[in-house]
Amino acid sequence: MKNTATLLITCPDAKGIVASIADFLYQHNANILHADQHQDAENNLFLMRVEWDLTSFNLDVAAFGQSFAPIAAKFNMEWQLKLSQHKTRVAIMVSQYDHCLADLLHRHKSGELACEIPVVISNHRDTEALVKFYGIDFHYIPITKENKSDAEATQFGLFDSYDIDLIVLARYMQILSPDFVARYPQKIINIHHSFLPAFIGARPYHRAFERGVKLIGATSHYVTEVLDEGPIIEQDIDRISHRDQVEDLIQKGRDLERIVLSKAVRWHIENRILLYANKTVIFD
Amino acid sequence: MKNTATLLITCPDAKGIVASIADFLYQHNANILHADQHQDAENNLFLMRVEWDLTSFNLDVAAFGQSFAPIAAKFNMEWQLKLSQHKTRVAIMVSQYDHCLADLLHRHKSGELACEIPVVISNHRDTEALVKFYGIDFHYIPITKENKSDAEATQFGLFDSYDIDLIVLARYMQILSPDFVARYPQKIINIHHSFLPAFIGARPYHRAFERGVKLIGATSHYVTEVLDEGPIIEQDIDRISHRDQVEDLIQKGRDLERIVLSKAVRWHIENRILLYANKTVIFD
Amino acid sequence: MKNTATLLITCPDAKGIVASIADFLYQHNANILHADQHQDAENNLFLMRVEWDLTSFNLDVAAFGQSFAPIAAKFNMEWQLKLSQHKTRVAIMVSQYDHCLADLLHRHKSGELACEIPVVISNHRDTEALVKFYGIDFHYIPITKENKSDAEATQFGLFDSYDIDLIVLARYMQILSPDFVARYPQKIINIHHSFLPAFIGARPYHRAFERGVKLIGATSHYVTEVLDEGPIIEQDIDRISHRDQVEDLIQKGRDLERIVLSKAVRWHIENRILLYANKTVIFD
Amino acid sequence: MKNTATLLITCPDAKGIVASIADFLYQHNANILHADQHQDAENNLFLMRVEWDLTSFNLDVAAFGQSFAPIAAKFNMEWQLKLSQHKTRVAIMVSQYDHCLADLLHRHKSGELACEIPVVISNHRDTEALVKFYGIDFHYIPITKENKSDAEATQFGLFDSYDIDLIVLARYMQILSPDFVARYPQKIINIHHSFLPAFIGARPYHRAFERGVKLIGATSHYVTEVLDEGPIIEQDIDRISHRDQVEDLIQKGRDLERIVLSKAVRWHIENRILLYANKTVIFD
Repeated sequence: MKNTATLLITCPDAKGIVASIADFLYQHNANILHADQHQDAENNLFLMRVEWDLTSFNLDVAAFGQSFAPIAAKFNMEWQLKLSQHKTRVAIMVSQYDHCLADLLHRHKSGELACEIPVVISNHRDTEALVKFYGIDFHYIPITKENKSDAEATQFGLFDSYDIDLIVLARYMQILSPDFVARYPQKIINIHHSFLPAFIGARPYHRAFERGVKLIGATSHYVTEVLDEGPIIEQDIDRISHRDQVEDLIQKGRDLERIVLSKAVRWHIENRILLYANKTVIFD
Repeated sequence: MKNTATLLITCPDAKGIVASIADFLYQHNANILHADQHQDAENNLFLMRVEWDLTSFNLDVAAFGQSFAPIAAKFNMEWQLKLSQHKTRVAIMVSQYDHCLADLLHRHKSGELACEIPVVISNHRDTEALVKFYGIDFHYIPITKENKSDAEATQFGLFDSYDIDLIVLARYMQILSPDFVARYPQKIINIHHSFLPAFIGARPYHRAFERGVKLIGATSHYVTEVLDEGPIIEQDIDRISHRDQVEDLIQKGRDLERIVLSKAVRWHIENRILLYANKTVIFD
Repeated sequence: MKNTATLLITCPDAKGIVASIADFLYQHNANILHADQHQDAENNLFLMRVEWDLTSFNLDVAAFGQSFAPIAAKFNMEWQLKLSQHKTRVAIMVSQYDHCLADLLHRHKSGELACEIPVVISNHRDTEALVKFYGIDFHYIPITKENKSDAEATQFGLFDSYDIDLIVLARYMQILSPDFVARYPQKIINIHHSFLPAFIGARPYHRAFERGVKLIGATSHYVTEVLDEGPIIEQDIDRISHRDQVEDLIQKGRDLERIVLSKAVRWHIENRILLYANKTVIFD
Repeated sequence: MKNTATLLITCPDAKGIVASIADFLYQHNANILHADQHQDAENNLFLMRVEWDLTSFNLDVAAFGQSFAPIAAKFNMEWQLKLSQHKTRVAIMVSQYDHCLADLLHRHKSGELACEIPVVISNHRDTEALVKFYGIDFHYIPITKENKSDAEATQFGLFDSYDIDLIVLARYMQILSPDFVARYPQKIINIHHSFLPAFIGARPYHRAFERGVKLIGATSHYVTEVLDEGPIIEQDIDRISHRDQVEDLIQKGRDLERIVLSKAVRWHIENRILLYANKTVIFD
């Protein structure tokens, strides 16, 4: 089983950053597996992802922070260290459309998604049998105007008790409260069934059909306080023609949604995503 | 040289339409080369394109209308008859970016676009040498706030004297007056450098960059009175990443613009486009 | 529930075919829903698909053949009449990779595939639980060099008893005998994990990796006597880079395989495919 | 004007490479603009591209080799240093199809290709006017079975006198002699009008049409001694249907060829391509 550490860094660009990091890792006998970096000239930012094998690493990982602190301080870095042995714990939220859910569960079982999925939460019972087939806990939490706040409190309790790191909205057809969104910054991934920023909001396939576009799209993004305005993680499109009715758009869209959402989840749990200026950098 | 007729029909859907048209063409010994039709259930519309070789057609084309009138009346058809021997006469309007212009001129010379291009009009002199290299008349008509109305009047005069059927805006960076648009309904094709309806208006690549989209697009459409809201003819996209700066978006976009605009022009001059409900049907 | 008839026709091209068919359908009060046709100039062939609502059709469908016979004879047609009320009965064959199987079963349950899937046959037990979850019979038929002929005989028996119309090889890693292939002409669909005709045969992803291609593909096709040479139904590709190892190609390929195979199955069961000259015409 | 140095490195993978290079550049006050690296686990190779601004670089570039020699020796590096102030000098060879040529010349004039194009060589006179319009020397060198060796000698002489760094075969329909190929290793880029390795050799569009593929492609690659087997630089595809005849494939293919060839040329002249194991790494 893979035993690696991944270091994610964001800081103002400056001379000597790479030299410092590379030297630090070399001094501690790290066997670097992947390194990727990005410099954003406009914002004068330096972003880096480096992953190394821990087998020969001579630094106690618990003490990493202390040893790395002088470098981090010198370059004013924001940094995170992720260990492959700690698998991200994912909660999936879903309503009635189950295509994204079924896709994620199958990918997870196939080993494509290196995370834990201990729980699925739904405001409908439609997906219960499927979830249980995969041996995952299912919680039915219906949502009404009246109970929304209580329902979310119940959800928060579940996230706590299952020790959840990431919430995936796999066609969850409820708008989260500002409080919900604020509690889990950069920890909620949504799939929107249009090529954002086109067709923000409800019924995007119907509006795409009415506008007569020649391509439909899907967008996965982090959820922020403004609807459909969070940092975009991935997008894809498919071609349509006048022969396609709304139902055909919906059907073609399902394939886009599956692929676009699953890529976002995979990149997140593999620690490949860095955020800045409401954008994502994907170190694939 | 090709000698065909193309009949384009739009009418309410009803039983017997195809039988009537097919029988009419058969009675007059038409050798059908291509036939395509579309039924829009929602709007109860029938749309058809049929092209036949005129060699053995036993009806005087001038008299076609008279012979076809009873069928057209019975089904309440709007119809147009186009002859391949009459080539569409195209005026291209351009400002300083010449990539779409150079592309159209080269395609035309290569035989890919079966039209005449007698004239190019520009509010700059940058493209004059290129246009003249291809043996095409070039008219320089500068535009200012003050002279806009006069400049358009001059343009209308040129369209008349060159007997223009289609106006192609190949990155012409001026907004046409309502009067201009109204004079040439479904006769003006524009290229917009975004995936409409995302990023309507100015500087779409800059806004795409700021929003952090993962795909950029281009859209060719007929010009109507509302900016960037006319019927979409073709769209395409290309993938970008965090490594792409605005300049890269602009460069990648040029390839999209060339292809998306040239397809729209080709489909128009080959009489493959029918309009309804602010949408296009492309009979390719 | 939909109650339509679909007529598929192939014949030498000639004047009057469309008029004859359209007139025949009009005389019998057919409400045409979709009609599409193709003329292949090189082979002088005419191909057509027409689908109509049976509600108002005044001809006893059982007697259709008799009434249509004079037209069919006049134009030397090969024709088939398919009724939407008879759903295609599909057997899926699979080995250990279950991604295409899981995808087909989920699409079927979602209503995307208007067929019956009464049985899945496998030479491994890996997929048994999944198949039974969807309420479908599972038959385990191991294959060895020695028992291959007997195993196929057992399979033929199952196809008979389940009244199978179409066999889908959803990553079934066994080569069918010539006898098997000959028994089910144009009734076996396979998914090949390359962009045919590149990388015919075994281990295409490994060979694609070695060759250093920049795109990988998948191809669905009818199975004929020559390996991977049958008529191609659908193909798609995805982009790869030097960062992708063989495992990444395999993972990306799974998404292609799912989509390309499911489209082929859908088009087949919706009677949208006509064959000629070892090619397919897809009336989508 | 840009004033940068680009260092390209290939060596066996080992700990400390990045630290050594980064430290070296930091010591000499390099302002790193872009850095990208790739580790090929299977072949135990490390590949890197790093580009820095020369403004503040405190090392005399002429002396770079001497200073860098100990690091290069320690890690057994193959390395090249490229200066942006030396623009690659490109000769284009072309026959009668001029779409790739016209595209390259227009991109060059637009500033998209940061190279010099002092000369175009053709075995036909068709493109002479176009080449001269862009102010470039044109040499007509007809090829026959008898004169091939002499003709190539003349070409070699031109490459010498124009001080050519890169030869681009922009639909040059002659097979180069082994001697020609051997003289210019990794210095000849060709465009092949298929998705290699499908349809190696002549008339790929005709063979794609006969096989009934659903996608056509184009491939740019370095020319090596075995026809169409050199390292692939870029590939792309477009979708076709039964409605497309061979002429349509050829037309659609032209757009692919233009884009795929121009990307290869751009990446080469921007020093973004490294070769190993008959494959390319593209540092884009």
